[in-house]
Amino acid sequence: MGASGYTGEELVRILLAHPNVDLVAATSRQLAGKLLADVFPRLAHDKKATSLKFSDWDAKQIGREANIVFLALPHGLASEFAKPLLSAGARVLDLSADFRIKSADVYRDFYGHEHPAPDLLGRSVYGLPEIYRDQIRDAQLVACPGCYPTSILIPLRPLVRRKAIDRSTILVASMSGVSGAGRKVEADYLFSECNESVRPYGVPKHRHLSEIEQELLILADEKVVIQFTPHLVPVNRGIISTIYTTIASNVVNIDPAVIFNGAYGEEPFVRLLGENRLPDTKHVVGTNFIDVAWRIDKRTHRLVLMSAIDNIVKGASGQAVQCMNLMLGLPETAGLI
Amino acid sequence: MGASGYTGEELVRILLAHPNVDLVAATSRQLAGKLLADVFPRLAHDKKATSLKFSDWDAKQIGREANIVFLALPHGLASEFAKPLLSAGARVLDLSADFRIKSADVYRDFYGHEHPAPDLLGRSVYGLPEIYRDQIRDAQLVACPGCYPTSILIPLRPLVRRKAIDRSTILVASMSGVSGAGRKVEADYLFSECNESVRPYGVPKHRHLSEIEQELLILADEKVVIQFTPHLVPVNRGIISTIYTTIASNVVNIDPAVIFNGAYGEEPFVRLLGENRLPDTKHVVGTNFIDVAWRIDKRTHRLVLMSAIDNIVKGASGQAVQCMNLMLGLPETAGLI
Amino acid sequence: MGASGYTGEELVRILLAHPNVDLVAATSRQLAGKLLADVFPRLAHDKKATSLKFSDWDAKQIGREANIVFLALPHGLASEFAKPLLSAGARVLDLSADFRIKSADVYRDFYGHEHPAPDLLGRSVYGLPEIYRDQIRDAQLVACPGCYPTSILIPLRPLVRRKAIDRSTILVASMSGVSGAGRKVEADYLFSECNESVRPYGVPKHRHLSEIEQELLILADEKVVIQFTPHLVPVNRGIISTIYTTIASNVVNIDPAVIFNGAYGEEPFVRLLGENRLPDTKHVVGTNFIDVAWRIDKRTHRLVLMSAIDNIVKGASGQAVQCMNLMLGLPETAGLI
Amino acid sequence: MGASGYTGEELVRILLAHPNVDLVAATSRQLAGKLLADVFPRLAHDKKATSLKFSDWDAKQIGREANIVFLALPHGLASEFAKPLLSAGARVLDLSADFRIKSADVYRDFYGHEHPAPDLLGRSVYGLPEIYRDQIRDAQLVACPGCYPTSILIPLRPLVRRKAIDRSTILVASMSGVSGAGRKVEADYLFSECNESVRPYGVPKHRHLSEIEQELLILADEKVVIQFTPHLVPVNRGIISTIYTTIASNVVNIDPAVIFNGAYGEEPFVRLLGENRLPDTKHVVGTNFIDVAWRIDKRTHRLVLMSAIDNIVKGASGQAVQCMNLMLGLPETAGLI
Repeated sequence: MGASGYTGEELVRILLAHPNVDLVAATSRQLAGKLLADVFPRLAHDKKATSLKFSDWDAKQIGREANIVFLALPHGLASEFAKPLLSAGARVLDLSADFRIKSADVYRDFYGHEHPAPDLLGRSVYGLPEIYRDQIRDAQLVACPGCYPTSILIPLRPLVRRKAIDRSTILVASMSGVSGAGRKVEADYLFSECNESVRPYGVPKHRHLSEIEQELLILADEKVVIQFTPHLVPVNRGIISTIYTTIASNVVNIDPAVIFNGAYGEEPFVRLLGENRLPDTKHVVGTNFIDVAWRIDKRTHRLVLMSAIDNIVKGASGQAVQCMNLMLGLPETAGLI
Repeated sequence: MGASGYTGEELVRILLAHPNVDLVAATSRQLAGKLLADVFPRLAHDKKATSLKFSDWDAKQIGREANIVFLALPHGLASEFAKPLLSAGARVLDLSADFRIKSADVYRDFYGHEHPAPDLLGRSVYGLPEIYRDQIRDAQLVACPGCYPTSILIPLRPLVRRKAIDRSTILVASMSGVSGAGRKVEADYLFSECNESVRPYGVPKHRHLSEIEQELLILADEKVVIQFTPHLVPVNRGIISTIYTTIASNVVNIDPAVIFNGAYGEEPFVRLLGENRLPDTKHVVGTNFIDVAWRIDKRTHRLVLMSAIDNIVKGASGQAVQCMNLMLGLPETAGLI
Repeated sequence: MGASGYTGEELVRILLAHPNVDLVAATSRQLAGKLLADVFPRLAHDKKATSLKFSDWDAKQIGREANIVFLALPHGLASEFAKPLLSAGARVLDLSADFRIKSADVYRDFYGHEHPAPDLLGRSVYGLPEIYRDQIRDAQLVACPGCYPTSILIPLRPLVRRKAIDRSTILVASMSGVSGAGRKVEADYLFSECNESVRPYGVPKHRHLSEIEQELLILADEKVVIQFTPHLVPVNRGIISTIYTTIASNVVNIDPAVIFNGAYGEEPFVRLLGENRLPDTKHVVGTNFIDVAWRIDKRTHRLVLMSAIDNIVKGASGQAVQCMNLMLGLPETAGLI
Repeated sequence: MGASGYTGEELVRILLAHPNVDLVAATSRQLAGKLLADVFPRLAHDKKATSLKFSDWDAKQIGREANIVFLALPHGLASEFAKPLLSAGARVLDLSADFRIKSADVYRDFYGHEHPAPDLLGRSVYGLPEIYRDQIRDAQLVACPGCYPTSILIPLRPLVRRKAIDRSTILVASMSGVSGAGRKVEADYLFSECNESVRPYGVPKHRHLSEIEQELLILADEKVVIQFTPHLVPVNRGIISTIYTTIASNVVNIDPAVIFNGAYGEEPFVRLLGENRLPDTKHVVGTNFIDVAWRIDKRTHRLVLMSAIDNIVKGASGQAVQCMNLMLGLPETAGLI
């Protein structure tokens, strides 16, 4: 539902090619009646795309037709649609921020208005398979993480869990491609405004902070406050997150390679670059991988983590399909490699 | 001397248009005999560029012909040329790293070989007018700062000098356009490798750290060790530096606006964006300005500074001309606005 | 008037730095009351920009205050404003298409509606100094050419005038940067839609055809119908026009170098690249130059012309200022080199 | 063989994911001994890529191990390798220009030196499945077409064959991404030289002309001389070819839709955009499709054709795999959709 944006388009692309999925509907009020193939010319060769039209079905109808529903709707609208879908028995993967924050108070603080469906907050599972794989399998409602949180939480998780780093020192500088802003028709995202431009934004309190800190608190079992600065850079897709942490004072020897291999050695979508290579968005764009590297800086006693993802794939639609695979008992990589 | 690279080309461009300068020579072994206008088609309309040819004059000859000599040569080579030039009475502005580091030991540590002219180190002045204006006026040898140091030292200086921030907490994430790598013909800088790519590099010990820490030590009167990560982003020109600092624990009230206005209110090339605007490389590219913004993050007690410069202008050739203006007693902005 | 778009912004930039101009007003309904320096951060250092605010003055008031008025308004609106300005005695340079077409019929055919001020059509001079220099000097109303026509008419003019080419064979493929679309907030011009995209548009009947063919008719003294295809390419600024012509059958020997040198050898903004070099937008961006090259293809008996301009400067605002210089009896290059 | 360039890398990527292929070797003198996964970080997750190393096997050894050999070697070198491979019984797909030209004289004229293996010229099949599908099935040696020829020949073929257009009027303006130059480490292809740059090159006699005209001659059964101008535009991948033709004077009614549907309605990789849509490289990049559109210009009696391909996929490696599928009796789209 809400298939007209960049994450919606990417979902359609992945689902059409997915060996175990039958796409029954793609909704968009604005595009209703148009063929998928006409709206997304990349898919013009696809049989289903040349026969399936965008619909303006409501949640009830979708709930009757589909077992799995992806919501690629604006924040706020998603939770409205989730209720009737869940009631109709559908399993829902929401790509908006609506169900990511467990606390209605934190939601209000960061999003500036009351949460529209606070009763559902407790039922949602945070859709980061590397952390919540088992819960996702059985979930009715999955809150798919934001792109920045994905790129930050995966590298931080094994270190925070083991208390290997001083949690008060976490600081993240991220660089994102412009598709991260969605298909918003605003002057700030015009080609001539973004091309040959690099700029910080959302300083100091970006909305994604709320879900990052929530998840770090769960991992650390203590409140964690981090510094986070996103920057807009002129690429279509891709996020680099460079994460600075101070090694905890009581940790004498730390071998990040051992920690990361232990945590992610078997993960299908985490690629550990280790100490010799550095991430580059061009190696992950179009894929569901997250590349993770690290360096210990002996001069500063800091451990620097660096990650790269495609913000639309591992940062949104690909990860949502990875969750769906888990929910349906399919191979986790189905349709994604 | 060494006018074939990006900083050399920019110097030629600025000097040809400078109202008080007569460009007598531009040297390049490789391009000797070619007209400036043929090598730099942007300058094809300029009278001087259509008559002046690249020469392969040696330092002695240049020293006889010119009062002011800019060295846009590779590190190591610059110091070789500086000696005879200074002996011949020329005043020298060196854009390489050769004379930036006062300590031959630090130089060896960061550059991996002995300094070629340690006796000259004491004579050079660090060419950052916002800090060393008076010394530059009388200097025989100016060591023009690196692009990253320029973008970092100017925002940090007033805070470090007043000890308003905890000097052990300084951390910098910078993003640079590809021209920062110079006109190096290496696979890493091919269009198809840089376009649609964002990547950290030089982690954790970039060479520019040495001059940044040297200058911070002088400002703070104490050793300062900082964290610094450069990233390569697909723009031709421009650097964003996002600088994180923790406000010193003994500082109760801090008003960065007052501090920055006090320090830079009269500076011709420092534009203070204050707390409402954020820097964007596109507003400084092609100019000698540095735009500086700041935000206090109450959640983390950090002061975040952000700056934007053109790495080839304020980060190299423009700043060198600004220094030259000071040395010659010209208006500081001559040829630059 | 209408200073909020890309051509308006560029006009403001050029006029603020122009040695003979005093900018008395910049109008924009939408931005009225805001400082120029706040809207255009590139100009934040400029004294006038930090004191002059956008106004919503009407044409009458502008006509009283200004001797010269630039209209950077949407097509249709410009002619509405021109009347009272001219009545008030101001001299007007219009950057819209309103006064470019001499024939109200052709205007209707290409623009789809009646011309709003047909009585003024006869009074306007086409603002291409390389063709209409003398008429521009005395003009009250100058219709500044479109960017594509500028890039096409200058190379074609000396050949068409001499009937050196078969006028039925003219065919143009142009490539334009995205700023050519103006600051239009439309999905087609979002960064993620233009970056990594190359596309033809406006096929087969682009509006600029009307003024190109009108001017060719005047030059050839015969009706000329040309083929013209514009393409959008992911650069901010710049147009390449590659123009194909068949050498007229009665022309035995043709030496384009002689023809072009004869026509443009003294032109301050035409740079002839001749037969050894090819144009590149990067050499003209930010300047008022047009670079022109040519090749005779012996295999096909065609003469291929290639030109490069900055669509916002020589293709719009720079050329308008060049016209203004002529109108005011200033050096033609004042404020432009 | 020669897997280190962009076409080689793309071949490796496609072949590793191809359901019917077992990649036994990838050769590169320079990279011998390195894991594919280390050289191509995009493939770091692939099992084969993490175990297979680049080898420096000679043609003989490859001929023994492989049934199918792709040559992604520089022009000239490819024909040297082809001989022993063919002798050893391997079937060869050559991506260089070595076997595209049937005439050793034309080869000498365009490539400037004698053909190194003229005896093999007669044995090669031009690897454009849309024209030579049947011959490719049985070929021992396939000469894969250049990227420009692919983008030009497919749209022209049905019109030339039917003599629907005047063959003396064909004129092509193409725009290519920078990967078309290969992984050549030359200053011209540095990021800072290509970004924000648009430029024609290879005017007037580009090498690809030879194979385009050869194939048009075969289709038309008459000599065809065309005009062709390539332009370099700042995208990684993609070619737009805009092709101008005059409708033959004896053709009264022409319906391109009928012609194109007749010719390509069943083609798996030709997508006909018809008269309502225009091609855009972003819709084909990463795919083996060619998108084709057309417009009749009633003002000029010309038929304008426009095509878009990914120069590395349909223009090189994807098309080579399409040919391999035919040679092996596999579904033509295997590994490609």
